[in-house]
Amino acid sequence: MDEFDFINNIKKKYSLDLVGDDCAVLPRDEWTDLLVTSDMLIEGIDFRLDWTTPRMLGYKALAVSLSDIAAMGGTPSWALLSIGVPQALWNTGFLDEFYEGWHELAGPHDVELAGGDVSRIPGGFVIDSTVGGFVTKGKAIRRSGSSPGEAIHVSGTLGGAAAGLKQLYEGLRGSPDNLPSMMLRQLRPFPNVQLAKRLQTEGLAAAMIDISDGLSSDLVHICQASKTGARVYADKIPFDADLLDWAGSFEGALELAMHGGEDFELLFTADPEKLFAAGLAGVTRIGEMTGNPGNIELIRNDEVRPLPPLGYRHF
Amino acid sequence: MDEFDFINNIKKKYSLDLVGDDCAVLPRDEWTDLLVTSDMLIEGIDFRLDWTTPRMLGYKALAVSLSDIAAMGGTPSWALLSIGVPQALWNTGFLDEFYEGWHELAGPHDVELAGGDVSRIPGGFVIDSTVGGFVTKGKAIRRSGSSPGEAIHVSGTLGGAAAGLKQLYEGLRGSPDNLPSMMLRQLRPFPNVQLAKRLQTEGLAAAMIDISDGLSSDLVHICQASKTGARVYADKIPFDADLLDWAGSFEGALELAMHGGEDFELLFTADPEKLFAAGLAGVTRIGEMTGNPGNIELIRNDEVRPLPPLGYRHF
Repeated sequence: MDEFDFINNIKKKYSLDLVGDDCAVLPRDEWTDLLVTSDMLIEGIDFRLDWTTPRMLGYKALAVSLSDIAAMGGTPSWALLSIGVPQALWNTGFLDEFYEGWHELAGPHDVELAGGDVSRIPGGFVIDSTVGGFVTKGKAIRRSGSSPGEAIHVSGTLGGAAAGLKQLYEGLRGSPDNLPSMMLRQLRPFPNVQLAKRLQTEGLAAAMIDISDGLSSDLVHICQASKTGARVYADKIPFDADLLDWAGSFEGALELAMHGGEDFELLFTADPEKLFAAGLAGVTRIGEMTGNPGNIELIRNDEVRPLPPLGYRHF
Repeated sequence: MDEFDFINNIKKKYSLDLVGDDCAVLPRDEWTDLLVTSDMLIEGIDFRLDWTTPRMLGYKALAVSLSDIAAMGGTPSWALLSIGVPQALWNTGFLDEFYEGWHELAGPHDVELAGGDVSRIPGGFVIDSTVGGFVTKGKAIRRSGSSPGEAIHVSGTLGGAAAGLKQLYEGLRGSPDNLPSMMLRQLRPFPNVQLAKRLQTEGLAAAMIDISDGLSSDLVHICQASKTGARVYADKIPFDADLLDWAGSFEGALELAMHGGEDFELLFTADPEKLFAAGLAGVTRIGEMTGNPGNIELIRNDEVRPLPPLGYRHF
């Protein structure tokens, strides 16, 4: 049983209707719904202190949650930040830089730190980032909104964050002020809040998710929630600029772009004509939704193969 | 610098006006405010797996956050639960029992689990519990609402949770179905949601906090926020029924009741006549607020001594 099965079991056992999207959608007032999301970042799993800086870590802690708000088409507003701090990091300046990095991203998004918790921890540094945001009542973009025939799109480029992670594992380091682009994508991800907001206000996206675990796994979440299948074209996947060179082969680059995760790009489905007419820059059409639930296919050189969900799993 | 200084520094540096109460108070609709709070529980700091059960741990994880909502006079409504799970606990039934314990408390309070995160962790089990609740607009009971001359009250009895913790450290164990009362107070605390709600709706409490770190420390938080002093009478402190016997002396019992923490009782200030007239059961008057900011005194046998904040600190 992986964590997705586990969450599905808990959801069924306790009839948790609010669980199963990037954010929970809760009623707020006459015009808006409240979006809330929590993300844990754990030393030794999600980051290592020797390959990031406290400032980039604070930035990323907020970025991953803003990306969840974006995935629902929402506008972030406030945050809670809980941290478990090893004794060795206390009074070292580490946390000052961490909060500076957090505010570096919070500032432009007008997100206010409203609370949280500060605790000592015997193990590594642990962060739980909670963000609240707003969306027009009933208009959050859910994973379940897709229909057969819609086109599948992704924002930006894929594979860079995973390649950057591999580079870090391989011992490559860079100056924080001048990191190689793929390491920067891993360590300081960009949440697509503005693009998502446009998709929401113009009614362009039928279903949406952010790519955190990996395109292959996150597409499954949309297909399961929407009870659809999907077909993806390998030669349409937008690779990160440095990816092909670094991977050395199309196969290697495709692997990272399909299953690597942490790109925090938007994956969404849309009426292809409507989206084309909107003239949106920075999104790529990579496939289409089908009426064949449970069937996710990858087309490569006119060959059709099943696309297994090989994105990141904790268990 | 302890964690309270650290939080105060961050609060000042970034002008975080929402930080500094048991919950953040955020505007919701025309009639209500939203309350949000997060609490981290960390294995080896807040609990040990050999002295609790997964069920009691799940119960406590929610209880500590409900107690924060109660401390503002609010009604809890939804929750996010983030957990960092060691590989050894995965697929063992531990989490099933943990979520059962959580729901055992959530059910009667009508709190819905809306989301969260499930992650692997290299160290011990970590929980971050976030709860959202509601309170009548502008009517949340804050730490800052107290004035000189008001009476200081506590709900229930004190010292039991700290004594229970000492018993656990000393190796005492009990059957989960029949725990000694003070260990039960430590392992399965009761959040005073109903009493707090009555104090709020009837306008009885001017300032309120829940006793999580310890009476002496939590009283300082009220005095600092309200810019007042306080006087507490040692012989008025309501001891837990088993406390005096177990501690062996009044001094020992007083120490645990004053500084022990985790009782999750309500500490509040009120107009003494108004509170008396309300005929509230289960609350004890222990002292009064004074116009002497920074000065917190303990009266014992007609002797006046400074009461230092010796409650729990992480750093």
